Amino acid sequence: MKEGGAPKLTIVKVGGKIVEATDTLQSFIKDFAKISGYKVLVHGGGRSATQIANRLGIKSEMVNGRRITDLEMLKVVTMVYGGLVNKNIVAGLQALNVNALGLTGADLNYMRSEKRPVTDIDYGFVGDVKEVQSDILANLIKQGIVPVLAPLTHDGQGNMLNTNADTIAGEAAKALSKHFEITLMYCFEKNGVLLDEENEDSVISEITHACFVKYVNSGVIKGGMIPKLENAFETIKAGVKTVIITKADNILTGGGTHVI
Amino acid sequence: MKEGGAPKLTIVKVGGKIVEATDTLQSFIKDFAKISGYKVLVHGGGRSATQIANRLGIKSEMVNGRRITDLEMLKVVTMVYGGLVNKNIVAGLQALNVNALGLTGADLNYMRSEKRPVTDIDYGFVGDVKEVQSDILANLIKQGIVPVLAPLTHDGQGNMLNTNADTIAGEAAKALSKHFEITLMYCFEKNGVLLDEENEDSVISEITHACFVKYVNSGVIKGGMIPKLENAFETIKAGVKTVIITKADNILTGGGTHVI
Repeated sequence: MKEGGAPKLTIVKVGGKIVEATDTLQSFIKDFAKISGYKVLVHGGGRSATQIANRLGIKSEMVNGRRITDLEMLKVVTMVYGGLVNKNIVAGLQALNVNALGLTGADLNYMRSEKRPVTDIDYGFVGDVKEVQSDILANLIKQGIVPVLAPLTHDGQGNMLNTNADTIAGEAAKALSKHFEITLMYCFEKNGVLLDEENEDSVISEITHACFVKYVNSGVIKGGMIPKLENAFETIKAGVKTVIITKADNILTGGGTHVI
Repeated sequence: MKEGGAPKLTIVKVGGKIVEATDTLQSFIKDFAKISGYKVLVHGGGRSATQIANRLGIKSEMVNGRRITDLEMLKVVTMVYGGLVNKNIVAGLQALNVNALGLTGADLNYMRSEKRPVTDIDYGFVGDVKEVQSDILANLIKQGIVPVLAPLTHDGQGNMLNTNADTIAGEAAKALSKHFEITLMYCFEKNGVLLDEENEDSVISEITHACFVKYVNSGVIKGGMIPKLENAFETIKAGVKTVIITKADNILTGGGTHVI
């Protein structure tokens, strides 16, 4: 921590794949528990939601990688994200003496959203974040509590809404940046942003916005990585110190692509 | 509040039947929101758990009114109690400006239990409460937060456990009685303990332990009401001021049977 600077906070977003299987979850939370200082965990859970929905005879429909959430699917994600996945993580962290507290946006009203307007696509009960009460989160964090954020918000009118975990992580990071010096880690299946998609050792270790534009123009960075990085730069612009894009295995080593 | 006395706290336990249907839930939380002063809500959710389990092809087995909780059923109750039911209540209360926070025993490690030993019956992943961190709950309550307690605990070793909602309410009340002057309301389907089972107007308005023994001996009180009242008297002995057994409709009127 810089003298007189804000305290450091690490926010780790981890996808469903890691937290839904017992063995990878155990290994991940052991690493997460070792992160020093203040921390927050944001999790997905899409695979379990799809599985449970299948078993309940509810069809999962995705558009551009986003889940269409009708009323039946809203019940499924509320159960799976807010209950099954969140509570298993919380219990696992408590076993490692991490004082975890599972939260959806409705809890303490920490994150309010609005149902996404219907355009050519009706995403259903999906929430676009409108308000993050960063003081509430900051107050918990400074008491040594580790919030475990499920990808669910509420509309303030009694309805839960499905909200992408990357978005939850980004919005929480932006709002908390007035209280903390934040490192936001997005874990995904590769070691980082790669110069060569086929080579896991070709990680771009640090990327500025100027570099990013150059790489996009030259075709090195393409596809789904473009919006991911655009979001990362937006988060940086909003006051987050560093965004790291990496594999869950790397959260202690600091490896991966640092977006600065 | 008596001069110099502990602040008042109302703990309401409500069964699944009320909180699982949208109309009864709405009416109940409107009443609950009107309770003045500090309050806690404890909820069940057994009917939804049974429904979801059925749809998932998981058989619900009950012994003496208690659910046998194998690993598959543990997943169901963790989803349904901790996610679906809990978050709908929390979102509903937030819409009424009640600062609700949904908790399982794992969250903040507020209630730890041990897996019930196998005797002639193996209840499976059912937890008997071993430790309630009343300071954690009291601290939240005194900040104006309204804990919404799901009937789930954890064993401190990473496992969630299923715990009866009446037990959660009783254990929380006992532990919190050193911080607050507590009224614990158990809501069930009748107006109170009845002198005549067929007559809803025959509510025993106040019952002492001596009266209870008399009524049991004379056969007025029988069946499932006996353990319910025994638990109530135990709670009173442990420091809870009043236990009220009543219908959810009566939580504002104070009607029902007062166990003193």
